[in-house]
Amino acid sequence: MPGSTFGELFRVTNFGESHGPAIGCVIDGCPPGLALSEADLQYDLDRRRPGTSRHVTQRNEADAVEILSGVFEGLTTGTPIALLIRNTDQRSSDYGNLLDTFRPGHADYTYWRKYGHRDPRGGGRSSARLTAPTVAAGAVAKKWLGEKYGTRFRGWMSALGEIEIPFEGAEHIANNAFFAANASLIPALEAQMDALRRAGDSCGARVEVRASGVPAGLGEPLYDRLDADIAYAMMGLNAVKGVEIGAGFASVAQRGSIHGDELTPEGFAANNAGGVLGGISTGQELVVRIAIKPTSSIRTPRASVDRAGQPTTVQTFGRHDPCVGIRATPIAEALLALVVMDHALRQRAQCADVQHELPPIAAARPG
Amino acid sequence: MPGSTFGELFRVTNFGESHGPAIGCVIDGCPPGLALSEADLQYDLDRRRPGTSRHVTQRNEADAVEILSGVFEGLTTGTPIALLIRNTDQRSSDYGNLLDTFRPGHADYTYWRKYGHRDPRGGGRSSARLTAPTVAAGAVAKKWLGEKYGTRFRGWMSALGEIEIPFEGAEHIANNAFFAANASLIPALEAQMDALRRAGDSCGARVEVRASGVPAGLGEPLYDRLDADIAYAMMGLNAVKGVEIGAGFASVAQRGSIHGDELTPEGFAANNAGGVLGGISTGQELVVRIAIKPTSSIRTPRASVDRAGQPTTVQTFGRHDPCVGIRATPIAEALLALVVMDHALRQRAQCADVQHELPPIAAARPG
Amino acid sequence: MPGSTFGELFRVTNFGESHGPAIGCVIDGCPPGLALSEADLQYDLDRRRPGTSRHVTQRNEADAVEILSGVFEGLTTGTPIALLIRNTDQRSSDYGNLLDTFRPGHADYTYWRKYGHRDPRGGGRSSARLTAPTVAAGAVAKKWLGEKYGTRFRGWMSALGEIEIPFEGAEHIANNAFFAANASLIPALEAQMDALRRAGDSCGARVEVRASGVPAGLGEPLYDRLDADIAYAMMGLNAVKGVEIGAGFASVAQRGSIHGDELTPEGFAANNAGGVLGGISTGQELVVRIAIKPTSSIRTPRASVDRAGQPTTVQTFGRHDPCVGIRATPIAEALLALVVMDHALRQRAQCADVQHELPPIAAARPG
Amino acid sequence: MPGSTFGELFRVTNFGESHGPAIGCVIDGCPPGLALSEADLQYDLDRRRPGTSRHVTQRNEADAVEILSGVFEGLTTGTPIALLIRNTDQRSSDYGNLLDTFRPGHADYTYWRKYGHRDPRGGGRSSARLTAPTVAAGAVAKKWLGEKYGTRFRGWMSALGEIEIPFEGAEHIANNAFFAANASLIPALEAQMDALRRAGDSCGARVEVRASGVPAGLGEPLYDRLDADIAYAMMGLNAVKGVEIGAGFASVAQRGSIHGDELTPEGFAANNAGGVLGGISTGQELVVRIAIKPTSSIRTPRASVDRAGQPTTVQTFGRHDPCVGIRATPIAEALLALVVMDHALRQRAQCADVQHELPPIAAARPG
Repeated sequence: MPGSTFGELFRVTNFGESHGPAIGCVIDGCPPGLALSEADLQYDLDRRRPGTSRHVTQRNEADAVEILSGVFEGLTTGTPIALLIRNTDQRSSDYGNLLDTFRPGHADYTYWRKYGHRDPRGGGRSSARLTAPTVAAGAVAKKWLGEKYGTRFRGWMSALGEIEIPFEGAEHIANNAFFAANASLIPALEAQMDALRRAGDSCGARVEVRASGVPAGLGEPLYDRLDADIAYAMMGLNAVKGVEIGAGFASVAQRGSIHGDELTPEGFAANNAGGVLGGISTGQELVVRIAIKPTSSIRTPRASVDRAGQPTTVQTFGRHDPCVGIRATPIAEALLALVVMDHALRQRAQCADVQHELPPIAAARPG
Repeated sequence: MPGSTFGELFRVTNFGESHGPAIGCVIDGCPPGLALSEADLQYDLDRRRPGTSRHVTQRNEADAVEILSGVFEGLTTGTPIALLIRNTDQRSSDYGNLLDTFRPGHADYTYWRKYGHRDPRGGGRSSARLTAPTVAAGAVAKKWLGEKYGTRFRGWMSALGEIEIPFEGAEHIANNAFFAANASLIPALEAQMDALRRAGDSCGARVEVRASGVPAGLGEPLYDRLDADIAYAMMGLNAVKGVEIGAGFASVAQRGSIHGDELTPEGFAANNAGGVLGGISTGQELVVRIAIKPTSSIRTPRASVDRAGQPTTVQTFGRHDPCVGIRATPIAEALLALVVMDHALRQRAQCADVQHELPPIAAARPG
Repeated sequence: MPGSTFGELFRVTNFGESHGPAIGCVIDGCPPGLALSEADLQYDLDRRRPGTSRHVTQRNEADAVEILSGVFEGLTTGTPIALLIRNTDQRSSDYGNLLDTFRPGHADYTYWRKYGHRDPRGGGRSSARLTAPTVAAGAVAKKWLGEKYGTRFRGWMSALGEIEIPFEGAEHIANNAFFAANASLIPALEAQMDALRRAGDSCGARVEVRASGVPAGLGEPLYDRLDADIAYAMMGLNAVKGVEIGAGFASVAQRGSIHGDELTPEGFAANNAGGVLGGISTGQELVVRIAIKPTSSIRTPRASVDRAGQPTTVQTFGRHDPCVGIRATPIAEALLALVVMDHALRQRAQCADVQHELPPIAAARPG
Repeated sequence: MPGSTFGELFRVTNFGESHGPAIGCVIDGCPPGLALSEADLQYDLDRRRPGTSRHVTQRNEADAVEILSGVFEGLTTGTPIALLIRNTDQRSSDYGNLLDTFRPGHADYTYWRKYGHRDPRGGGRSSARLTAPTVAAGAVAKKWLGEKYGTRFRGWMSALGEIEIPFEGAEHIANNAFFAANASLIPALEAQMDALRRAGDSCGARVEVRASGVPAGLGEPLYDRLDADIAYAMMGLNAVKGVEIGAGFASVAQRGSIHGDELTPEGFAANNAGGVLGGISTGQELVVRIAIKPTSSIRTPRASVDRAGQPTTVQTFGRHDPCVGIRATPIAEALLALVVMDHALRQRAQCADVQHELPPIAAARPG
């Protein structure tokens, strides 16, 4: 409840600071009997980790994860799985100045206001580095859901700043630094990033993330709806300022006769719902889009105040992502997996005895 | 955790179905000593209740609330405040057909899939009627926050279907059926609604809700961020498909040198953050926008299947809002108040001893 | 979390005061499809209710319960079950004096200290009357567990003050006002109560409660152990000052070679464990004993102070149980049922896929 | 909720197995600004750790704790404090046999029944070794409560098997291996332990733990009572089978005219309540006693079954405490500190504005 635990039945408790000795998490509630090793976690950690292209922070962290507990003879035991990632490339000898001023658009001011005392080194607790344990935990959820229900998660960048990136094919996503499902636009994206770096500025991004193979019936009807928990998860990702599901903001201008997805014996005719109706999964693909603001740590001088309230100017040097959205795709996938996992366990707690003669209605034909 | 409780320290547990004997909620954790009577709750309940104009459902419910506990001699005692609202205008003699088919875009199918057994009368648990207790609970939070911190909540409709509704002045909001902060567009909005009703169709809407006077420092840094909890609350409101805070989706195309709100001794220079940085309130106005999909219960015939999986056609007669967004404004205000209230209590639990010499930075000059 | 909600997955949120308009609870998380009516709840409510013999408070409450939600066509729907019990026999015209003084051994002082403002009528929130909704909720749990696993709950009084009440046979329990599993001692118990009433004094009691047919594997290993949650539930019952499980305090003087229950192909050889090992149910009978202190509201004058801190003398007239333990048996059964129910749902959330070739080891032959 | 997290606002999430690479915990919700270093934790860890006398397990663990996060420049930051203790003296080459049989009185059977797969090395997750992180977290709570309210915790052993150990003076506690507040009985206790070790048997114990300087008003009235949470905490300690508060089981035979502690301007006249009335602290000393069963891992042969259900005989060699109660005192203190800490934070969340003219009534004169 104090803010570092995610989920109710599949619970992830996160710890660490950007430049402290280590970061990590404790996963409690994982079903027993799941084959699990460090290698299962490393794939997604590597997709997220820094230093993999010139377009992201040049901090060099292997993000090697150690499983401290909860796995015996290669299988989960049902007890907490503790994951530890040592920080190895901290450089924070000169954070003194950071303690005294507040970067515009950054959590410096709000942390100080809340706690009175904060770790400023590399952003401390507010650093996007703290998403690494989330990604590792998400990998556990992905594995269990994949084996149990065939659930699959995939995400991609759909806009980098003002550049829209049309979806051309999922096969492109792994072949570029941007998680773009598009090959032809990569030179334009690289040019945009190079220009920003030269200008000492940053830009925003939009990421889309989907889950297929989600069983129908997950979610709670009133408050802990599946879509509500997705929105919570995504808006909690660093720098996210907007979340939409299915038709999203476009549904404002839709008519009911268009928006409501018709049902046929062959399946849903469309997926404006984005896989959720009344807070409960339909069995269609979950479709989520998030808006990510531009990085606030930039070289461009900005006006601010210091801790005494006096005006000052802030420029941020050092190693920062000029578009924090570039590494957001695997994180958003992980968060979606954690939400689905938690609701999958909740669902069988309450409704394990429910039986239907009618098989689930098929997902929409992809449009 | 099973989905009908909202909040951690200021907890609202909701119960009821649209056509059952009663709806209501239990508010646990309210600070003692707050002057409270039914009249304090009725103002917002009346703003939300049905039958107040020809543009909303014609169901006639007084939504008169009874306080069953937690108040003694006009003051809250700190023990649970139970609120009861009797349903008085149910008409559900003929729901048999509803049990067998699934309205496109409606929760009929997902409830059935989840629970195997559901109350179809008036939408049962999935009805927007269940937002009435939320609104009443929100009124308690509004009162306490107003007295303690001077916090104020206000919302308005900013788009009705494809019609954008510019903000002209807050004084207009209470003077029309739409919660529009605009007088000149009312005839156009009424015409739109009348046309939809004739056509047997529905449309979406966008609502904006704000909170001023929110203390800096509310929220948790990693998962239970203030913005994450706002997104959770708003996406959980019936029919909402998108949530954005501050610059929202527009931040995708912004540069960091524009987006980050500069700090000056006189206050923040802008409010792209929408009042939250790093998951913690800045002391600026909270700015939230939600996208509401068109009502799924419409007279236009739509394709569906029945419980045996056979194709059928569904038309929904009866009393439904042709734009569920019209009554969403007081609900969104209430949800925002509940989130702020919960975090206000959390904050003093952990950080009551924090002291600052620097007074909080002032909110942005309204732009 | 503010203290009026019991359980994690089968959650009971309690509200009300002794002399307010009503008491009740909201049960969230009940599995759908359970046949349920008011009659299912009334049996245990009647066992607990006041006025049924001269040995308990003469307050006359029918404790008639109304199901407000969560049941449709006689079956639970999986949505919250709200239960309402109107208070009908309040007499609190003259509570003024109660507001100003603190009964020794009573919650008067601590409520006032905590909240600053309290409802003193009939003890307000601290009245044992608030156990009625718990009993009703427990009846739902008993019914589901009985149908699903054959679990059975039964309790009896094993001591009334200094009088030990040997277990003679379960058939006696329903035939006396004390829930004594003994027929021959009833005259002695009645004489004890009559003497106390004349003396204006009260006495304590010990109650034993058991559950058979509890599946093996319920409970969590580290903190939320089944025995820990049982202790929490029981110590939370008004006036309880001690809880023991299995051999309990007698295990202090036992040797390990005696205490540890041997396993045989025919079943456990004994049940010193009381049905729990390592926080997890063994499949044996759960065996719990609770110590209940004497009622603090007595006619005997006692020294106290008033709200100004001045010395005063307190005598409590009015309708009070001279031994609150007499009505504790059905409450303790209900609490045990709620704990088992919650853990039954938790267990299938995490471990639904676990399979064993070896059937569970049989419970101990009753010793 | 899956069982490895303790507390609501001051939350401790525990991980690890006896013979895995490490054990530890994450403390979330600690107020910022508390001076904290490893040394603050080591004192209580050393009181608990194995190998300190011939009467406890001879496993040699330094239990050196590393703070991984949440402390910056010697002060807590309000973010999670992760604590890591590496296991260094595991010897588990030959656990094969342990996997196949179930020690009577041990969690072997229930873990296997629950999870299907378990780590048997040294008891795995069920080992008392997992109390080390609890003790470390308790040390943080003790420090904060001591500085804020002057709260002090102390415990002692009051019975070792059938030997009652009268309280002679707190100064003796640190001077013997048993945490006995008594000097003259130490030879008898040592003789008892030596005899047990020779016999390959074990015995139980009773421990008393107290907290002074607890503010009045902590606790919730209905379910999350302070006494209920204490009972939960204590019954959750390995091997505990009984918990009592204040007069405890002796209150069964008390009269109300004796039990209820009178209030005087000079303070409470007695402390039968053990510091809690109506679930809320009175400001008196919290008085708790726990019954600890004899260790189940003994050399004496016992009947059991194997995983195939066939009869077998179990003898446990290796390093085990012949009385697990000997090391229980610092653990019980830590658990009590964690409960008080959590309720101290809850209390100011809801009731920070409550003011009284009357100062708290003084604690009872020690009797």
